[in-house]
Amino acid sequence: MSSDRLIYLPLGGAGEIGMNCYVYGYGPEGRERLIVVDLGVTFPDMDTSPGVDLILPDIAWLQERKDRIDGIFITHAHEDHVGAVGHLWGRLEADIFARAFTANHARRKLEEHGRDPNVVEVVLPWPEQTKAGPFAVSFLPVSHSVPESSGLVIDTPVGRIVHTGDFKLDETPLVGEPFDPALWSEVAQDGVHALVCDSTNVFSPHPGRSEASVGPAIEKLVAGSTSMFVATTFASNIARVKTMAEAGKRAGRSVCLMGRAMRRMIEAGVEAGVLSDFPTTVPPEDAAQIPRENLMLIVTGSQGERRAASAQLSRGKYMGLTLKEGDLFLFSSKTIPGNEKGVARIINNFSEMGVDVIDDNAGIYHVSGHANRPDLERVHEIMKPRMVIPMHGEHRHLRTHAKLAREKGMGAALAPNGTMLDLTGAAPQVAEYVETGRVYYEGSVYVGALDGVVRDRIRMALNGHILVTAIIDEDGEPLGDPWVELMGLAETGTSNAPLVDVLEADLSQFINRAGRRTLADDDALEAEMKKVARQSASAEIGRKPEVTVVISRLSS
Amino acid sequence: MSSDRLIYLPLGGAGEIGMNCYVYGYGPEGRERLIVVDLGVTFPDMDTSPGVDLILPDIAWLQERKDRIDGIFITHAHEDHVGAVGHLWGRLEADIFARAFTANHARRKLEEHGRDPNVVEVVLPWPEQTKAGPFAVSFLPVSHSVPESSGLVIDTPVGRIVHTGDFKLDETPLVGEPFDPALWSEVAQDGVHALVCDSTNVFSPHPGRSEASVGPAIEKLVAGSTSMFVATTFASNIARVKTMAEAGKRAGRSVCLMGRAMRRMIEAGVEAGVLSDFPTTVPPEDAAQIPRENLMLIVTGSQGERRAASAQLSRGKYMGLTLKEGDLFLFSSKTIPGNEKGVARIINNFSEMGVDVIDDNAGIYHVSGHANRPDLERVHEIMKPRMVIPMHGEHRHLRTHAKLAREKGMGAALAPNGTMLDLTGAAPQVAEYVETGRVYYEGSVYVGALDGVVRDRIRMALNGHILVTAIIDEDGEPLGDPWVELMGLAETGTSNAPLVDVLEADLSQFINRAGRRTLADDDALEAEMKKVARQSASAEIGRKPEVTVVISRLSS
Repeated sequence: MSSDRLIYLPLGGAGEIGMNCYVYGYGPEGRERLIVVDLGVTFPDMDTSPGVDLILPDIAWLQERKDRIDGIFITHAHEDHVGAVGHLWGRLEADIFARAFTANHARRKLEEHGRDPNVVEVVLPWPEQTKAGPFAVSFLPVSHSVPESSGLVIDTPVGRIVHTGDFKLDETPLVGEPFDPALWSEVAQDGVHALVCDSTNVFSPHPGRSEASVGPAIEKLVAGSTSMFVATTFASNIARVKTMAEAGKRAGRSVCLMGRAMRRMIEAGVEAGVLSDFPTTVPPEDAAQIPRENLMLIVTGSQGERRAASAQLSRGKYMGLTLKEGDLFLFSSKTIPGNEKGVARIINNFSEMGVDVIDDNAGIYHVSGHANRPDLERVHEIMKPRMVIPMHGEHRHLRTHAKLAREKGMGAALAPNGTMLDLTGAAPQVAEYVETGRVYYEGSVYVGALDGVVRDRIRMALNGHILVTAIIDEDGEPLGDPWVELMGLAETGTSNAPLVDVLEADLSQFINRAGRRTLADDDALEAEMKKVARQSASAEIGRKPEVTVVISRLSS
Repeated sequence: MSSDRLIYLPLGGAGEIGMNCYVYGYGPEGRERLIVVDLGVTFPDMDTSPGVDLILPDIAWLQERKDRIDGIFITHAHEDHVGAVGHLWGRLEADIFARAFTANHARRKLEEHGRDPNVVEVVLPWPEQTKAGPFAVSFLPVSHSVPESSGLVIDTPVGRIVHTGDFKLDETPLVGEPFDPALWSEVAQDGVHALVCDSTNVFSPHPGRSEASVGPAIEKLVAGSTSMFVATTFASNIARVKTMAEAGKRAGRSVCLMGRAMRRMIEAGVEAGVLSDFPTTVPPEDAAQIPRENLMLIVTGSQGERRAASAQLSRGKYMGLTLKEGDLFLFSSKTIPGNEKGVARIINNFSEMGVDVIDDNAGIYHVSGHANRPDLERVHEIMKPRMVIPMHGEHRHLRTHAKLAREKGMGAALAPNGTMLDLTGAAPQVAEYVETGRVYYEGSVYVGALDGVVRDRIRMALNGHILVTAIIDEDGEPLGDPWVELMGLAETGTSNAPLVDVLEADLSQFINRAGRRTLADDDALEAEMKKVARQSASAEIGRKPEVTVVISRLSS
């Protein structure tokens, strides 16, 4: 037993915000029994992942050790924690444990991928425990923006680990369980070996505000509006959707939810019994019949997504409704970095319609679902862990969070994705660096982030694409002239002749002067023709495009 | 004379922040004499303009009327006001008027494009006037972040127009002339017909702060650092570069400027005599010899640009220097929407090196160069114009600025790019909508934004590209099988066979069964093969890629 060790390995979520996936293990080195915490996704962008639908953690390391996995624990029903369950479960095939609302989501994702939803087991919160190999795991209710969000209390032979999941310290969260300091103290009373802790808001210097503070502000805004009132937030922010719906009701409006994701989220909550007190809403198809001054829409698209309800409303008619002068549109949300331009596009469209847009610049119509710096300090204080392992943050968040812990005399380790820590002793040690990364899901296939597929697409986007075809006849001589097609390139360059003509002329000249040895060698011929095409394009348009050469050889 | 009219037409800058280009005209309808204010550029992004180097206003309307242009006036030396001079002057061929520092920039841009720099005439500020057709134009010194920034006082037969250019109300700007309320009152004393006014910061509710407030904060930060201190800002923010250099000097450090754009900007200022008091700096090649605690670098790359000095330092060695634990990096800048991810990448790289990064979240290390809402109100108050025409802003900025003016009883018009206003009467009227837009400069060519070239590149980035070649022999029969090449697509799909093989098999089957009429018709054959390739890809990888088909026909 003396050689047994306790390990921690983030495969996603440490070094980024999103795509959470963490592994804990206990046992002899290389034979540890493992549990997995969360299987989340993150979202692509045009800069780095054009054409990608979804980004998943690379779980090759886990897959090679799937026989050692004693359970998969999902902390809450947000995509960056549960979104990869359908995609990745087949590679791990271990039982999934989650609370009821989260379990519903995980099951639906499995069904969407043709998997048996019964591998998900519903568990009750603390003090209930689930045994998983050497671990006993309990779901600790935390306040966040979605029902039944939980931290995990993981009892190990070395001691207790508290893995917070996403959380904030909200004593009046409206949805989900309030932060209960007594409960947290109870968890901590016999000592916490390691606190593995959300770092998202470590740069926010003031204590976080409660969800309950948002409702009255929105209600006042609705009450002051004499025309249609439309509000958006993340569909997954169930707490906010409820806050807004209640504010609309109190202001005497009919409330209508628009956008598939939002309707589905709320329905799931009602079905799971965690949103039984959600206000009655009118169906979208009836909204157009209601006088605009009596109507409040709650819509998807807080991040400027092109197909969401907010974007559709900003482009014109949607579900029979057209916004106009005097209507009010509220972003009860924060714009995620990278989405600013999409959000601005929608606001400007609304501006053209005469719709007034209110965002959260003033900081009163939105509160974050994550713990701010003083809240993190409070949790450190309650838990008094031997060590703090910051997670759920970019490197700068993890580093700053680790500093915070060290300043208060706790041990801390900075462990970005792939860093395996040995937590057996009094201080965390780096045990190993594991190769990890991202897998892209696009269409119906999975592509490694480093496979070069997306890199080639980015190159075509930046440089354009030239296609060259040439035929070599039975005697090894060029048959006719090379043919050129362009995609994403200017039609004419500096010589004012069509670029296609210039390229074809230069390639003809080359191939007709090429020696027999070059003509006989496909690789050499292709390389030379590529070079000619690139030089020719460079002279004409100042750019070296991507070039694909196809040589067809007639058999003798 | 009764049929003469005064017109205003924004071709860029109204409906966006950047790419400024405005036209004023006076005379009989359709024969107005024209002046142009600013010829600026804006910058591309991966979302909407991958592979583009620079975005210029579409000045086709002006070009068709070039014989009626009596002058081009450039307000200041920022790229979004002067950046297109080299590209577009040849289409307009009118004299350019600017103050000395701005004229230097305009001349360099003309020279870079092989144009005669002598078309730029240096003018003195108010009360000097330049006659240009029916207009008399005077450069009114305003405070902004670059020397000799000016508004234009444009006297017309209808009355005085004040075109503010970019400005803030800074009585201690460190670089350039301070805001002088007496001077502005003097300009306004005989009445202002129209105030055409910067709208950038209309959403900032507090009065703007002076550049002079930044220096002491930075000096304190430098003084508290015991290792290397690196700071970045826009190279074009000459005021800030000077503020930082002086703060570094006062804190006893050797100051070194790094990055070509920054060195060039400061050199130009010194040469033009507007920066004669700029602190002495050490050349970049000597920086590595100076003890790090005595060194302050001022570097390019505040927006996360991949090739700028800040990005290079964040990736490792640059000019013999490597940052390390204990060094401090300051962003004395605001991150422009869309650049957040690039900036975060650099901060995280520095975090991995152990470098502490300070940004302007606290609002003390950066001030804006534009007038905030209370400042705009103050200018309205001083100028008491008959009408306010908001410019330099997205639609939301223009609309909010117009509202502000109307609430104070002034007339106002919302005129996005292409909206020609008739300013002859007491209230602005829309005269006409002019077709306008953007032109992309890439490599060495110009491409219309709606030409489809960039759209094709975006499609390849999102969908990948399939190339199909087929040969039809002298008898009109397929010769061999079609050949497929892929670019930016997964190698295998759901059938686990190589995607190329599946596509070739499906295309072979199609072509070998195709009727003689299809085989004889290139267009029909191409369309059918495209369809087959897309369907086949869709079944395999769940995507319909772009397809280019090349049919080679052997002549009989």
